[in-house]
Amino acid sequence: MGATGMCRAFYKKDGLAALLMDFQMANSSEVLDALLVQPTSTGHAIAFNYLVPNVKGLQNFFHVLDSASTKTSQAPPSPPPTPIESAEWPASNTSAQDPNAVPSRASSDINANLSKSNTTEISVFAAATEAFSKANLNCSIAESLERFRPILLQAKERNIRVRGYVSVALGCPYEGPKTDPRKVAEITSSLLEMGADEVSVADTTGMGTAPKTRELLKALSAAGIVNHDIALHFHDTYGQALVNTVVGLEHGIRIFDSSVGGLGGCPYSKGATGNVATEDLVYCLHSLGVKTGIDTQEMAKIGAWISEELGKSNETRAGKAILARLRS
Amino acid sequence: MGATGMCRAFYKKDGLAALLMDFQMANSSEVLDALLVQPTSTGHAIAFNYLVPNVKGLQNFFHVLDSASTKTSQAPPSPPPTPIESAEWPASNTSAQDPNAVPSRASSDINANLSKSNTTEISVFAAATEAFSKANLNCSIAESLERFRPILLQAKERNIRVRGYVSVALGCPYEGPKTDPRKVAEITSSLLEMGADEVSVADTTGMGTAPKTRELLKALSAAGIVNHDIALHFHDTYGQALVNTVVGLEHGIRIFDSSVGGLGGCPYSKGATGNVATEDLVYCLHSLGVKTGIDTQEMAKIGAWISEELGKSNETRAGKAILARLRS
Repeated sequence: MGATGMCRAFYKKDGLAALLMDFQMANSSEVLDALLVQPTSTGHAIAFNYLVPNVKGLQNFFHVLDSASTKTSQAPPSPPPTPIESAEWPASNTSAQDPNAVPSRASSDINANLSKSNTTEISVFAAATEAFSKANLNCSIAESLERFRPILLQAKERNIRVRGYVSVALGCPYEGPKTDPRKVAEITSSLLEMGADEVSVADTTGMGTAPKTRELLKALSAAGIVNHDIALHFHDTYGQALVNTVVGLEHGIRIFDSSVGGLGGCPYSKGATGNVATEDLVYCLHSLGVKTGIDTQEMAKIGAWISEELGKSNETRAGKAILARLRS
Repeated sequence: MGATGMCRAFYKKDGLAALLMDFQMANSSEVLDALLVQPTSTGHAIAFNYLVPNVKGLQNFFHVLDSASTKTSQAPPSPPPTPIESAEWPASNTSAQDPNAVPSRASSDINANLSKSNTTEISVFAAATEAFSKANLNCSIAESLERFRPILLQAKERNIRVRGYVSVALGCPYEGPKTDPRKVAEITSSLLEMGADEVSVADTTGMGTAPKTRELLKALSAAGIVNHDIALHFHDTYGQALVNTVVGLEHGIRIFDSSVGGLGGCPYSKGATGNVATEDLVYCLHSLGVKTGIDTQEMAKIGAWISEELGKSNETRAGKAILARLRS
């Protein structure tokens, strides 16, 4: 198991938004162990997500999972819920530009499979460019996919949910801003065919722009990939994350990754900032009439708190503005 | 003349974007004097904008203008150019959402009136809510408009360009987020009828959202106000400035205010941050295919430099990312 643990939280008070809260952990085995032995008490379903780089990592993951299960005398985790809860999308006016362009069908269908239980899932990271794959995974894209195949197979045998990622989907620190959208679609398809429950298409460098996002989504659709198998993962490095999110919404995407306080980053993408801040994303979604069930004031407090705990600057505009208003 | 000087720069290398660079000055008479006696040398037309709160302020402004003119033995400033240069909007794909929704006609028509000379203009600030008008101007909205009438009359007699502003057009720190768009349209119309060359509709608090921006623009159009008489002025307090900009672009607005490094703020709007950063705005416009003629690397350097000079944090994501890439 890698040194990075990821806690993926799904909120479902009034509906649900899929939210990623990524943070670096000293030892993710310990985190997994703690979470399994002492599950968090929350009214919301939370998916705890663990990066599994190879089969050895998966075996470690199973080992921790099984020992924790023995410790708590609990059965292994229940079959994972469908990962997203459906946010309530307004019948109209969801979109800033063209309300008719936003179908609410996908999320409603998924709604039927909702489960309220927390779950544990694993993630595998592919890259959209050979150079980034080499830097991040030390192998070619094709080799990385072959490495993932047994991981997905074994995970599915144990009924563990798998999330695939395609990094640098809208620009690469090594190969530049023009990642081939057809290549992204090809890798996404491969991951889905191997059994990934969902693929997060990631703008790791933040080089994504509205037209590029649109082109990528068109390429994914053209490859036969349906919207509810995809999540979009934006970094706000160049300030374009919310504009790109609106493009995604209009295309029918309903799962967006983010991190409170805009935490995160990527060691292989110099100057990369963290994910778009959950506070900014949720503020934007709410402004468009989406009901996520998230209390933005509490979210803003969490962002400020965890940023301080980690000694990082709180990179959310909405969160800071909400807190400033609370103080005034 | 107020204590706030504003330098409004219009770039026109490949076309033009109207950009506001607002910064607080210790003494704007001195700034005006210096600029008139020693004009900046630049290949671009620059409009230097001075806030004139009342007739007394206008008289002071004329006084400085006339003495500077005597000092330099130059004629008073030449007739002001049409304030915006026309950026080159792409024939298609301008918009992130619907390229067909973005007519390029307005800016092309304006193009015909281009002038390359620098100019000096004045600005008057109205507010869209009674509470903000009282706090900012110490009078009702109606009284403020009556105060502006002789200012505009005298400015027009001297052939000085006038820019009107309508503050808190998308949310007020005192009256809340729901400013009446019809009231904004009414005040905008009044300013234009008095002779304002252009009115900047300002989201002073940053409470503007995509649907609210859209509703406001519809109200302005419904009141018979044409797009090329309007500028949009967003603050990125809640991170929504670029999403709102895209809404404005799609409506056909072509003038957007911003400030390098996201400088600025508003003493009467607690927690308000500065204008949206020029770096972020220009990066977004360029991503949509707009040619502004602005060198984003140089712009990023300026933002970092002036932020440091003023001891303020550099509030641009794009600018900082561009500089990080330059250093790597």
